[in-house]
Amino acid sequence: MISLFYEGENNVICAYMKITILGNNSALPAYGRFPTAQVIEMNEQLFLMDCGEGAQMRMQQFGIRHMRINHIFISHMHGDHFYGLVGYISSLSLWGRQKEMYLFCPADIKKVLESQLKWALGFEIIYRIIEEGERAVLVNDDKFEISCFPVYHSVPTHGFKFSEKKRKRILLPEKVREYEIPAYFYKNLCNGEDYAAMDGRFVKNELVTLPGHHGKVYAYCADTRYAPEICPDIMCADLIYHESTYLENDQQKATERFHSTAKEAAAIAKEAQVGQLLLGHFSSKYKELEPFLEEAKPVFENVELALEGMEFELQ
Amino acid sequence: MISLFYEGENNVICAYMKITILGNNSALPAYGRFPTAQVIEMNEQLFLMDCGEGAQMRMQQFGIRHMRINHIFISHMHGDHFYGLVGYISSLSLWGRQKEMYLFCPADIKKVLESQLKWALGFEIIYRIIEEGERAVLVNDDKFEISCFPVYHSVPTHGFKFSEKKRKRILLPEKVREYEIPAYFYKNLCNGEDYAAMDGRFVKNELVTLPGHHGKVYAYCADTRYAPEICPDIMCADLIYHESTYLENDQQKATERFHSTAKEAAAIAKEAQVGQLLLGHFSSKYKELEPFLEEAKPVFENVELALEGMEFELQ
Repeated sequence: MISLFYEGENNVICAYMKITILGNNSALPAYGRFPTAQVIEMNEQLFLMDCGEGAQMRMQQFGIRHMRINHIFISHMHGDHFYGLVGYISSLSLWGRQKEMYLFCPADIKKVLESQLKWALGFEIIYRIIEEGERAVLVNDDKFEISCFPVYHSVPTHGFKFSEKKRKRILLPEKVREYEIPAYFYKNLCNGEDYAAMDGRFVKNELVTLPGHHGKVYAYCADTRYAPEICPDIMCADLIYHESTYLENDQQKATERFHSTAKEAAAIAKEAQVGQLLLGHFSSKYKELEPFLEEAKPVFENVELALEGMEFELQ
Repeated sequence: MISLFYEGENNVICAYMKITILGNNSALPAYGRFPTAQVIEMNEQLFLMDCGEGAQMRMQQFGIRHMRINHIFISHMHGDHFYGLVGYISSLSLWGRQKEMYLFCPADIKKVLESQLKWALGFEIIYRIIEEGERAVLVNDDKFEISCFPVYHSVPTHGFKFSEKKRKRILLPEKVREYEIPAYFYKNLCNGEDYAAMDGRFVKNELVTLPGHHGKVYAYCADTRYAPEICPDIMCADLIYHESTYLENDQQKATERFHSTAKEAAAIAKEAQVGQLLLGHFSSKYKELEPFLEEAKPVFENVELALEGMEFELQ
């Protein structure tokens, strides 16, 4: 029996999205901060975003259930974003993994892994090579999709967007009774269809349903110079992570090295009208991180430091 | 003026040898324990012994002055002994190193580094490839030498021995005056020569000197099955590190996987008549490490766990 409260199969599962920070530093580890890595939890799956050295240790430390990770994304070929990959892949095999792993990455990552993993892995790695400048949907699930978009760094680099799909329309039980719509058509109503009965009656969808919830969006902007060109790709995201390697007095150095300052990251968040901004990829020259917040807040108020071990939930 | 207390140029500098444990676990990191790496301090120089993932973070944590490391030794081609190498080498370059680095390793390490270090390093790596089964002096300094010897693992693997050279004989000031030996000959006396004067007088060295101090020896026995064959190479060392991946109830597994138990490591220490034994390379299956000591002590009393952050000094 179909409940009158049936909301469509996509309406109830995707309870939340959660981002856990494993490493937040740039090229050199410093002050106990590890190089870049994050885990995104979505629809009961985990996704590993970049994999700097020590990411697997941080996963253990923070209680990440690594066997639930089936997709890994590497933004670019700088070591602070992938030197932990071979160790993690190797450990997965030693832990007995048999399920295939999807790896979305630049072409050279495959060579790096093959030069070091001399023994057979217990599982297959399925590579999806991301080409320079590519903008594409990489994972298309019933309930979410993950896409890549180019950012602007010294080597080909991509950001990634995790988008919960817009949830289906919600039935109004009293209304569907009132309009005498048969239960077999409820699913069509949830998909937005109007009801046209055999006897000629016509019921507009909006009379018997409410709009579905907004699908949450998280965007990871990887390493990039200040680049307003990325704004269309991250427009109105609920949460973005944007690198902020430097503070404002190193703005010129940031530009020269294709990195951003905290203030520039905040300007992007403002222009893209996002909900919240996470700052990370801090230069090893900084011991104290509070100044990053202080410089970003006047431009974009809802900003946080992506500190290691912190979890950011999108409810 | 040469002091009467002149002891020969090699007698006063090499004050001590110190071993700092950076990582003590086997293939899989576990319970906060990192894969294998150590730093040996000798004659005011630092030597990096194996470089598991995260070794550079541990160096920072324990205050190791990485710029003083000019020699790195990799025992074998298993990832838990070298996955941290590319990150460390990369960081050295970013820190501005220009001085060459000597790397003693299996041939494949060079390929691994070259596949990942796409940009030019700021310094040269001078490779000394160690061939399977090789037994050789790798570093021959005035005051110490470092040699390699084969151990018995599932892939070609070497142990390394750090030997302070036997210190020169010590002059007895009153005796050299009594025998009227001229100051220019003191250095020869320290080198063990007898004194033959132009007037026919002959003074046996032992009459005017005392024996020099015993040169300290540390041996790192890498990954190996129980192998009494290695005893001649580490005989009477002051301190050895011997792997003890398993406890006694996994003795068969240890043998199958070319690893040792704590009891077997203790048996090697006993047979080689060493001064002290450090146990390490613990399997990730063990949370508690005390049982390793309990099983080793009845066989060899002077045994310690190589816990991360611990320093072992040879005075």
